[in-house]
Amino acid sequence: MKDKVVLAYSGGLDTSFCVKYLTEEKQLDVYSALANTGGFSENELKDIESKAYELGVTEHTALDVTNRYYQRCIRYMIYGNVLKNNTYPLSVSSERIFQALAIVEYARKIGAKYIAHGSTGAGNDQIRFDLTFQVLAPEIKVIAPIRNLQLSREQEIDFLKKRGINRDWTKMEYSINKGLWGTSVGGKETLTSNQTLPDEAYPSQLQKEGEETLTINFEKGEITKVNGEAFTDKIEAIKTIEGLAASYAVGRDMHVGDTIVGIKGRVGFEAAAPLVIIKAHHVLEKHTLTKWQMHWKEQLGNWYGMFLHESQYLEPSMRDIEKFLESTQRNVTGKVIIKLKPYRFEVVGIESDHDLMSSVFGEYGEMNKAWTASDVEGFTTMLATPMKIYNAVNKGELNLEDAED
Amino acid sequence: MKDKVVLAYSGGLDTSFCVKYLTEEKQLDVYSALANTGGFSENELKDIESKAYELGVTEHTALDVTNRYYQRCIRYMIYGNVLKNNTYPLSVSSERIFQALAIVEYARKIGAKYIAHGSTGAGNDQIRFDLTFQVLAPEIKVIAPIRNLQLSREQEIDFLKKRGINRDWTKMEYSINKGLWGTSVGGKETLTSNQTLPDEAYPSQLQKEGEETLTINFEKGEITKVNGEAFTDKIEAIKTIEGLAASYAVGRDMHVGDTIVGIKGRVGFEAAAPLVIIKAHHVLEKHTLTKWQMHWKEQLGNWYGMFLHESQYLEPSMRDIEKFLESTQRNVTGKVIIKLKPYRFEVVGIESDHDLMSSVFGEYGEMNKAWTASDVEGFTTMLATPMKIYNAVNKGELNLEDAED
Amino acid sequence: MKDKVVLAYSGGLDTSFCVKYLTEEKQLDVYSALANTGGFSENELKDIESKAYELGVTEHTALDVTNRYYQRCIRYMIYGNVLKNNTYPLSVSSERIFQALAIVEYARKIGAKYIAHGSTGAGNDQIRFDLTFQVLAPEIKVIAPIRNLQLSREQEIDFLKKRGINRDWTKMEYSINKGLWGTSVGGKETLTSNQTLPDEAYPSQLQKEGEETLTINFEKGEITKVNGEAFTDKIEAIKTIEGLAASYAVGRDMHVGDTIVGIKGRVGFEAAAPLVIIKAHHVLEKHTLTKWQMHWKEQLGNWYGMFLHESQYLEPSMRDIEKFLESTQRNVTGKVIIKLKPYRFEVVGIESDHDLMSSVFGEYGEMNKAWTASDVEGFTTMLATPMKIYNAVNKGELNLEDAED
Amino acid sequence: MKDKVVLAYSGGLDTSFCVKYLTEEKQLDVYSALANTGGFSENELKDIESKAYELGVTEHTALDVTNRYYQRCIRYMIYGNVLKNNTYPLSVSSERIFQALAIVEYARKIGAKYIAHGSTGAGNDQIRFDLTFQVLAPEIKVIAPIRNLQLSREQEIDFLKKRGINRDWTKMEYSINKGLWGTSVGGKETLTSNQTLPDEAYPSQLQKEGEETLTINFEKGEITKVNGEAFTDKIEAIKTIEGLAASYAVGRDMHVGDTIVGIKGRVGFEAAAPLVIIKAHHVLEKHTLTKWQMHWKEQLGNWYGMFLHESQYLEPSMRDIEKFLESTQRNVTGKVIIKLKPYRFEVVGIESDHDLMSSVFGEYGEMNKAWTASDVEGFTTMLATPMKIYNAVNKGELNLEDAED
Repeated sequence: MKDKVVLAYSGGLDTSFCVKYLTEEKQLDVYSALANTGGFSENELKDIESKAYELGVTEHTALDVTNRYYQRCIRYMIYGNVLKNNTYPLSVSSERIFQALAIVEYARKIGAKYIAHGSTGAGNDQIRFDLTFQVLAPEIKVIAPIRNLQLSREQEIDFLKKRGINRDWTKMEYSINKGLWGTSVGGKETLTSNQTLPDEAYPSQLQKEGEETLTINFEKGEITKVNGEAFTDKIEAIKTIEGLAASYAVGRDMHVGDTIVGIKGRVGFEAAAPLVIIKAHHVLEKHTLTKWQMHWKEQLGNWYGMFLHESQYLEPSMRDIEKFLESTQRNVTGKVIIKLKPYRFEVVGIESDHDLMSSVFGEYGEMNKAWTASDVEGFTTMLATPMKIYNAVNKGELNLEDAED
Repeated sequence: MKDKVVLAYSGGLDTSFCVKYLTEEKQLDVYSALANTGGFSENELKDIESKAYELGVTEHTALDVTNRYYQRCIRYMIYGNVLKNNTYPLSVSSERIFQALAIVEYARKIGAKYIAHGSTGAGNDQIRFDLTFQVLAPEIKVIAPIRNLQLSREQEIDFLKKRGINRDWTKMEYSINKGLWGTSVGGKETLTSNQTLPDEAYPSQLQKEGEETLTINFEKGEITKVNGEAFTDKIEAIKTIEGLAASYAVGRDMHVGDTIVGIKGRVGFEAAAPLVIIKAHHVLEKHTLTKWQMHWKEQLGNWYGMFLHESQYLEPSMRDIEKFLESTQRNVTGKVIIKLKPYRFEVVGIESDHDLMSSVFGEYGEMNKAWTASDVEGFTTMLATPMKIYNAVNKGELNLEDAED
Repeated sequence: MKDKVVLAYSGGLDTSFCVKYLTEEKQLDVYSALANTGGFSENELKDIESKAYELGVTEHTALDVTNRYYQRCIRYMIYGNVLKNNTYPLSVSSERIFQALAIVEYARKIGAKYIAHGSTGAGNDQIRFDLTFQVLAPEIKVIAPIRNLQLSREQEIDFLKKRGINRDWTKMEYSINKGLWGTSVGGKETLTSNQTLPDEAYPSQLQKEGEETLTINFEKGEITKVNGEAFTDKIEAIKTIEGLAASYAVGRDMHVGDTIVGIKGRVGFEAAAPLVIIKAHHVLEKHTLTKWQMHWKEQLGNWYGMFLHESQYLEPSMRDIEKFLESTQRNVTGKVIIKLKPYRFEVVGIESDHDLMSSVFGEYGEMNKAWTASDVEGFTTMLATPMKIYNAVNKGELNLEDAED
Repeated sequence: MKDKVVLAYSGGLDTSFCVKYLTEEKQLDVYSALANTGGFSENELKDIESKAYELGVTEHTALDVTNRYYQRCIRYMIYGNVLKNNTYPLSVSSERIFQALAIVEYARKIGAKYIAHGSTGAGNDQIRFDLTFQVLAPEIKVIAPIRNLQLSREQEIDFLKKRGINRDWTKMEYSINKGLWGTSVGGKETLTSNQTLPDEAYPSQLQKEGEETLTINFEKGEITKVNGEAFTDKIEAIKTIEGLAASYAVGRDMHVGDTIVGIKGRVGFEAAAPLVIIKAHHVLEKHTLTKWQMHWKEQLGNWYGMFLHESQYLEPSMRDIEKFLESTQRNVTGKVIIKLKPYRFEVVGIESDHDLMSSVFGEYGEMNKAWTASDVEGFTTMLATPMKIYNAVNKGELNLEDAED
């Protein structure tokens, strides 16, 4: 009996090569598995399955981890307003982790001796796969044929041709990775530092003119309604927002940042729903959370995003941060009003029973009901004390005029 | 001989009232002083001066602190990419501090017994004035007539009328504060949580169509060229960028945040140059700084902004943070290419000799020259070790499948 | 019918004065309340009660909040290894908050119109009381007679004498505040910067010689056993440790730090149990938590301590931090072995099923089982990449020899 | 002509093996280099040199980097009060980096093709060497014979014997690493979690009884006097303090923490001078720095220590942190009084012109001169506002009594 290998399979050239390579060169029983985090339609899934069998896999499985991906990741990225480098909603990086988790779990279930993936040696994904596999299943050996053989596309195509596989492997002008939480677009301009992607490079194109109001209701930080319609399935809510916002071509940008492999990477992305949701959620928080909740959420949310990106999702501190983030959401409940316009959107405002800008004690800048002139004088006297002492002790160090300008 | 009072004077209703009140009710010699941080034209300055004398001040002075404001504040806000709550460039709050500093310095110079300001008891500015005055000149007493008498506009106008001052004090629909680093717009919609300012509320209106390329050169974090033209005067450089960008009506947004007086405040602003400069600078940093420089800059830059906003500019730790920020800028040199479009702009890219996305060691995602497949395997093996041990010791705690979803 | 005032009563001179002052000068019905956080014996409680009635209170109540204090505060201070400025276990400051909470709750329950406390205007406690009262019962007015009348001890004694109260109010040489989580000692040397308290100033004196082993078992961060004996009552466990450790006169130190009122304060303390428990807990964590759990615990634990100290216990972010801290404790289970010696103690080591220093993968520095030489080479190659690129791009900036020494 | 290899040579078994292995098996010209960071006497240096020539090196050099080590590292560790995990002064780890820097600089100077070191594959040092070498001299290849050949001590001894080298290689019971900034002690008990080192394991033994006062003067954070005697050579000052303090056997402890290779490590150390200096410096800072300077120093100082430990000394952000730390020291000037006793020491107090506990505005807890009762009331009213609003809006969420205990 042959040994089993679970292959993280996508239907593309690299993983197609892997099937043939593993079955014929390595004499393994290939169990291809597609970990679906919400980026595939039914038809796409069927097509991938039939192609897998055609290549000779022993068994193909589609692992649906969309719900887990939402429950254990997207939810926290929203709570944490996670935008890497203030820009990027971790569209692809966060999904890879959940795909890796699904693959390793499946491999342990069927008692596979190997796990294989089609990543090259150039990017982040290989780390996300290898690391997750090693942590959770140190007994299973990882094979990464494309990386280890250092094959070019032409060599792969040639290898497949010789084994009777003649598909159209035409390389797209841009390498596009579509997922539930956004689509990344790489190639050409993204390999330079001084050019940006042309409009045509993005999968979604502007379809609407004028402007349109969109409302999103949150309850304890989670989406409950879109334009007044209730959603219990959060995935559906996200897809609905994506449908509305993507037609205005919003949520496009370029991310420049540090990769896990240590070099700077640059990638374009479109992520209409993630951007709209995070900005809306953030504004709702500005109204419902206190200054120090916002302060610490920013620290921990950004760190969470960084670790998620860098394949440290399983690090135990991530669970602790999730508890923190969840706790902060207890009053993040209300409606956010957004205006969609071509290529941009704005958050108009919010309505919430938990709005701390409530006028119970007066509006800012208007007649105040919560304090007197004398209270302010006392306040500033006390606030001034430490600096007053410092300046007295340190002989006027704080006086600007004494220093050169 | 009467006692001297220095009045922070702007020419508006509140400070006009203060002149009359201090001279006639308090029997003080009023030295009116306008602290100019770059928001006034020559004509405006003259007009303010003549109005001051008309009201009866003993002496009027315009204190130009524009350069100091740039050297000791704006520069660091750029280094730190300071946007409060990820949104607001501290347009007005940072200027107030430098106005207060100029006033207190002047008061000490002329031996004033009192300093007066026209702030009400409702906002942040009173704290910025009182606190700065107290820290640097605890021997000088602060008078804030509007706050302490709790006067309404009508009462002030009436008081002035009775003393022969009949000007047009018509209240503007919006309260507008114009400065070098942006203009704030308050009133009506900003007092609600669910409405946003209409286009007409903003002082600058869209004047251009189509798109236009703007380039900004930075050297060690400071602007040196705009569209190829060299600027040694950084204030002029900022004003030039403002002129170009404001005609596209970019840099508008709403800031919602915590005030020093403890309640939530909401204010609109337009800050074309600050937003364009900060975003451009930030992208240049993403290319030229390391991951950990970016990480710590974010912590310290945000804190710097918060303290600046909250009137803690004189706190000694601010000087330490400035040293840090300055040090990080040693390689932030290069050209940033921006595209201006109606109501929005995008950073196209950068060109820099210090670009760490340099292809010396290969581009991200392409064939790598800096490591081998085996290096990555070693890397992930080592990275995985702590979590592998954790999972072994803690009996599979990290395995997701064992937990409920 | 007279209005009710709840007086935070301790039986000392200041609060005795308050009873007489409030009943006779203010014509109020005084409800004296002693909020007990674990620092009083049964006899002390009875004595305080009888003295209260003797002074003329309408009703006296002892509010036992020891358990709440542990559940809602001490527990988190242990989880967070809270030592202010790396030294001080917040012995008194944390208790004041829970006393204030009990008082305001009681005042609301009996419908009091006023709350009174005996704090002077010089310290932190007045802030802790006032702030807590205002936040939770803005409708109740606070009276602080000693602070507002600025009375000297002599004036208070005189006032009481005139009303027939002749007790021995002899001032102690040191002001001592005894509580469950430590005792503070102020006066004489603590008012200087260059002297320390003599041994005799501390309430507990060295009673033992030689050395003694103490073991503490923790389960999820909470004490379960002391020297092998199980404790369900955590208060009893703490008192048992205190009994053992205090006889070795350990846990003494001086705290110098920033007070809420803005000046530096210096105070001696003895806190045998808190110091032993926190150090023991900390070492157990070093063995059972990951690097990043320790990293973030330090940030959040220190902040928690600072906010607790500064009367910000009710700030909503504190509840979020508690969730974080609690989550980190899931594997902090094991036995810690401590050696007590005169004036010092050392943590010998720990035993835990969750010890990550487990030899499953080899001991540090010994033959390793988890990686190969080649893995380390790959690891360092990858780790070196960003700095290698930086140095290449920035023309040898990292080479030390090129710079002056 | 043979290729040159620079060998980081210490005279021990491992590096002695390397000389023979590199000359005879690899046919290289060995340039042995001892990087001295202050832990060697003249005699030791001579002995090491003669042994090197005896083994057949082409040339031996002693590189004295003591001064650089102080200027570029120890100084900042003092500024930052660096104690890893609140315990360990990075005695050995920080020295390794400066040894590696000296070695790579020397290798570049003489045009070596290889650098060799004697580290095993089990510890942190290999990473410190490899990483530093790679970053600064990517063109030089690193050889680590002991690691790569996985040799046992016996095999090494045998190899040397066969080549006529018969020295006494008796393994010490503990592995001891002596340096300027402390000595580490590993072996036996440190490989367990539940035992501590016996007194005899430490190189320095208790030599004095009773107690002794020690004073240290700091100027801008650097030591200028010890017991009143001025020192311009900071290394001498440190050695003088070490001489005095070590005779009381202070500064011993166990460090448990995360290694760079990913597992937990435990090591004993004695570091009398570092501990005394850091604690003294820290107390001086508590008196001379503001709350927020202390706050940020703690964050950045701890991070600096972590990165130093983990071989990230060359990371550019470290230079930025150094600028921050240096800036904070501008007023850290004064005398610290310490009392040395057997096995422990206490900081008695400080004297400084920059002492913020100055009585200009009154002592803490005593009659205050800087504010009135009314000021405190205003202060607490303002401080209470955000929480008062929060509690009003969120229907009493902050009231503890409504929740279960």
